[in-house]
Amino acid sequence: ASCIRLFTDQYVSKTATKTVSEFEYDAPSMKTAVPGPKSQELLRQLGEIQNVGAIHFFCNYEESRGNYLVDVDGNRMLDVYTQISSIPIGYNHPALIKVMTNPNNVSAFVNRPALGILPPENFPEKLFESLLSIAPSGMNRVQTMACGSCSNENAFKSMFIWYRNKERGYASPSEQEVGTCMINQSPGCPDLSILSFMGAFHGRTMGCLATTHSKAIHKLDIPSFDWPIAPFPKLQYPLEEFVRENAQEEARCLEEVEDLIVKWRQKGKPVAGIVIEPIQAEGGDNHASPDFFIKLRNIARKHGCAFHVDEVQTGGGTTGKFWAHEHWGLDDPADIVSFSKKLLTGGYYHRDELQPDKPYRIFNTWMGDPSKNLFLSEVLNVIRRENLLEEVTRSGKALLQGLYSLQTQYPHILSRARGQGTFCAIDACSDATRDSIMLKARNKGLFMGSCGEKTIRFRPALVFKEYHVHQLLNILNDILAEHK
Amino acid sequence: ASCIRLFTDQYVSKTATKTVSEFEYDAPSMKTAVPGPKSQELLRQLGEIQNVGAIHFFCNYEESRGNYLVDVDGNRMLDVYTQISSIPIGYNHPALIKVMTNPNNVSAFVNRPALGILPPENFPEKLFESLLSIAPSGMNRVQTMACGSCSNENAFKSMFIWYRNKERGYASPSEQEVGTCMINQSPGCPDLSILSFMGAFHGRTMGCLATTHSKAIHKLDIPSFDWPIAPFPKLQYPLEEFVRENAQEEARCLEEVEDLIVKWRQKGKPVAGIVIEPIQAEGGDNHASPDFFIKLRNIARKHGCAFHVDEVQTGGGTTGKFWAHEHWGLDDPADIVSFSKKLLTGGYYHRDELQPDKPYRIFNTWMGDPSKNLFLSEVLNVIRRENLLEEVTRSGKALLQGLYSLQTQYPHILSRARGQGTFCAIDACSDATRDSIMLKARNKGLFMGSCGEKTIRFRPALVFKEYHVHQLLNILNDILAEHK
Repeated sequence: ASCIRLFTDQYVSKTATKTVSEFEYDAPSMKTAVPGPKSQELLRQLGEIQNVGAIHFFCNYEESRGNYLVDVDGNRMLDVYTQISSIPIGYNHPALIKVMTNPNNVSAFVNRPALGILPPENFPEKLFESLLSIAPSGMNRVQTMACGSCSNENAFKSMFIWYRNKERGYASPSEQEVGTCMINQSPGCPDLSILSFMGAFHGRTMGCLATTHSKAIHKLDIPSFDWPIAPFPKLQYPLEEFVRENAQEEARCLEEVEDLIVKWRQKGKPVAGIVIEPIQAEGGDNHASPDFFIKLRNIARKHGCAFHVDEVQTGGGTTGKFWAHEHWGLDDPADIVSFSKKLLTGGYYHRDELQPDKPYRIFNTWMGDPSKNLFLSEVLNVIRRENLLEEVTRSGKALLQGLYSLQTQYPHILSRARGQGTFCAIDACSDATRDSIMLKARNKGLFMGSCGEKTIRFRPALVFKEYHVHQLLNILNDILAEHK
Repeated sequence: ASCIRLFTDQYVSKTATKTVSEFEYDAPSMKTAVPGPKSQELLRQLGEIQNVGAIHFFCNYEESRGNYLVDVDGNRMLDVYTQISSIPIGYNHPALIKVMTNPNNVSAFVNRPALGILPPENFPEKLFESLLSIAPSGMNRVQTMACGSCSNENAFKSMFIWYRNKERGYASPSEQEVGTCMINQSPGCPDLSILSFMGAFHGRTMGCLATTHSKAIHKLDIPSFDWPIAPFPKLQYPLEEFVRENAQEEARCLEEVEDLIVKWRQKGKPVAGIVIEPIQAEGGDNHASPDFFIKLRNIARKHGCAFHVDEVQTGGGTTGKFWAHEHWGLDDPADIVSFSKKLLTGGYYHRDELQPDKPYRIFNTWMGDPSKNLFLSEVLNVIRRENLLEEVTRSGKALLQGLYSLQTQYPHILSRARGQGTFCAIDACSDATRDSIMLKARNKGLFMGSCGEKTIRFRPALVFKEYHVHQLLNILNDILAEHK
C-alpha cells in the first residue's frame, strides 16, 4: 500500500528493537531547514489575516503518519509534541480513517446537534462506550464541552453552584439573589473563589485565566478575580533521591493552602473549590508526590471545598494510566476531573453531588460535538487492542533512562530529567540553550515542545515505541555532542 | 433516490407555491405525542449521566432532511428552531455530505491540528475562500475559535489588550505590570470593564457571563465583575408605527450609556469596550433602529472604547443580509464582529488595530477546527448558488405578514410580531400560554423555540421557503383557533 514506506534510518541505535507499524514511516527525513520556503510563503499569506508569531511551520497532514509529522516542504519529523499533546494515536491512524469513511457516521458530522436539547439517538450509548468506559473511580457522570477552557469554566461553575446550594441548605434562591445576579452583584453573584497554584495552567477564558499562573504573556492586561494562589511544591529530581527534602517542601505548600482557605473565608471570598493539575505542564512539568495530592484532597474535604483535578494535558494514557491521578490511590475520589486534548472532546466527569439542580445552568448551544465521540470510541478500541498503556510505560521508562544518561553525560547543559510514562521533561541550563537545542533538533527531524522557563517537554502519542525513543535520543545526543 | 419522499400535506395552504427540493420531505408527519416512548426511554438512560431537564426529545439525524427534523419515534417536524439557530442550510444537505465523502478532506477530520502553531497547508486558502469572502466591511482579519463563548471571551481579551496598549503608549509593560499580572492584581490585571446591555446574551463562560443579562438561571451563584449595564431600548412594534416614541426611548438609553462610561471611568474601572447584539435574541428578540446603533458606535469612538458587535445568533444570512449589522449602514465599521452557530465555527473578525501585538496572547490548543471551515466553504457555495439571502428576504416577509395577520385575528393571545428576514418573533399573552402553544405545535409537527419571558422565536434554516411559511402559519392558526 502507498502508506508503507521503508527507509534506512541513520539515527537508529543498533540495539533498539525495530517495530514498524503497518502504516508508519521508519525515520525522519529532512529536505530543507525548517521552516522551509513553502512554509515561509504561507506564513506571509496568513500574516495578512492573523498574528503568526507562534507558528512553527505549515503541515502536510495527508502525508503525516503515526509519530511522523510531514511539513509542506517535504520534511518528515519525529513528532514528540503532537499538536500540544492532543493527538492520541498518531497521525492518520487507519482506525480513525475508517470512522470517517463509515457511511453510518456521515450524519454525525454533517448535522451538529444542540446536544443539551436534541441529542442523537446513539448519544447515551456512545457516552457509555467512550467516556464512561474510562471514567475515573467514583465518577458516574460526564458533561462534554467543546474545548479545555470551556470544560474548566463549566467545572468551576458547577463547583460554585454546588457550594451555594450547600450554603442555602438546598432552598430556593431568595428574590434578592435572583434580582442581584442579573446585575452582577452579590448575593446573586457571590464573592466566591477558586484556589489555584502558582505555575498552574487551566486555560485562557477569563474564569480559567484567573487560575492560570504560568506565564505573564497569558495574563497581562486582562482583568481578573482576587482569588487565592498557593505555592506549588518545587521538588528536587530524581524524586526518589530527595524524599525527605521534597516531603518538607510539600508540607510547607499544604500549610499555605490551609492558611489561604482561612484567610479568604475571613476576607468574605470563601474558597468553593481547589483546582490542580497532576503534573503542572505549561508551568514547567512540575511533579508532586501522591502523598501531597492525597493530603490536599483531605484539606479540601475538611474545609468544604470541591476538589477539581485538571487532566486536560495529563489525561488520556500518556502517564501509563488513563488518568494521571490514578497513580495517587485516592480513597476519597475527586469531585471533578476535566479533560480535553487527547480525548478529542472537552468535558469533565463529576460526582453526583456536583450535578446542577436545574437545567440550563450548565448549558450552551453545542455542549461538545458527537462526531468527536465517534473518534474517541475508536481511539479507546485501539488503546485496548494494542495495549498502548503498557507500551507507554515501557517507552516512558526507556525515555527517562535515556534522559538520565544524557544529563549525566552533559551535566553543564541538562538537568532535572523527570517524567511519568512518556510525559517526560528535562531542563536546559538557560532558555537560550533550550531554544537552540530545539531548533537544531527540528532541523535534524525531531520536533519537541517547550514549557516553563527553560524546560523541554516530551509529549509523544501513545503509539510512541522504544524504537522511537532511540531515534529521539540519538538526535539529541548528536546535538549535545556538537554543543560541547 | 431514497431521499425523495412525497406525501400529501394536510396543512399546506392552496395558495402557497409548492417548491419541493430534491432532497427534502414535503410536510410534517406525526406518529406519537412528543416525546414519544423511545425518547422517554433514552431520557431515562441519559438521566443517569447528565441533567436532562432541557432535552425536548431524541433525534434521528440520519432521517432528517432540509427543514424537517425526524425524532427517534418516527415523528417528522417542520423545524424552525434548527438546533438553537445553528443549522445553516437544513439537515443532511447533499453538498455537505459530499464534503464528508471527498477523500481529499479525510485528513482534516482525522488530524485536528493545533492551528496556532502548526496549521495545515490549505489553511490560509480555506480562510480566504470561506470566512474572509464574507467579511463585514472594514474587517480584514479573522480569528477562529471552537465556540461562541470562546469567541466572545477572546474578543473581550483583544479589546482589553488594545486598550492597555493605547494607555501605555505602546511601550513595553512595566516590571510591576508583569509581576502583578501573575497574581491577578492591578496594574498587570487592570480594573477594566466591558459595557453591556440589560437583556443581552453573550455566552456563559465567566467573562461572557458578566455581560449576559437575559435570565437569572444563567447567572445565579457565579461570581462576576462589577461592569456597567445599560438599558436596551424597549421599543413598540411595528417599528414603523412608533417612530417618534421609539426614537425617544433610544435617546434615553444612549444617554445612559454615556453616563455609565463616565461613571465607570471615575470609579477607576474604565470601559475598554461596548458589546451588543444587533437583535437581542435570548433576551426576547428585542430590536433597535440603525440610528441607535450608529449613534452607539459614535459614542464608543468618542470615549475611546472598542465597539464589538456580537453576531453569534444574527449572523449567517438569517436577517436577509449576511451580517445583521450590515442593515445599519455604518460609515465607521465596528472594531470586532464575533460569530458562531450557522458559521459552524466560532470566531471573530477584527480591525487591524485590534490584533494583539505579540503571539500567545490570543491562543489555545485548537483555535477552531479546520474541518468546520471545509463545511462552511460549501455552505457559502450553496447560499450563493441558490440565492438563499433573497429566499430569506422573501420567506421572511411572508412570515412576518402572516404573524401580523395572526395577531390581528387573535389579539387577546398574540402581540408584538417583529422580525428581520426570517429572524422573527411574536409574544404570547403569558409564559403559560406561550409554552402551551409551543407544546401543541410540536405535537402537530411544528418545532419552535422560545426566548425572553413570553416570546416565541422563529429561527428557520436559510432553505426555509414560502411554502414552509404557509405550513407553519396553518399549524399555528389551527392551534390558536382551538385556543379561543
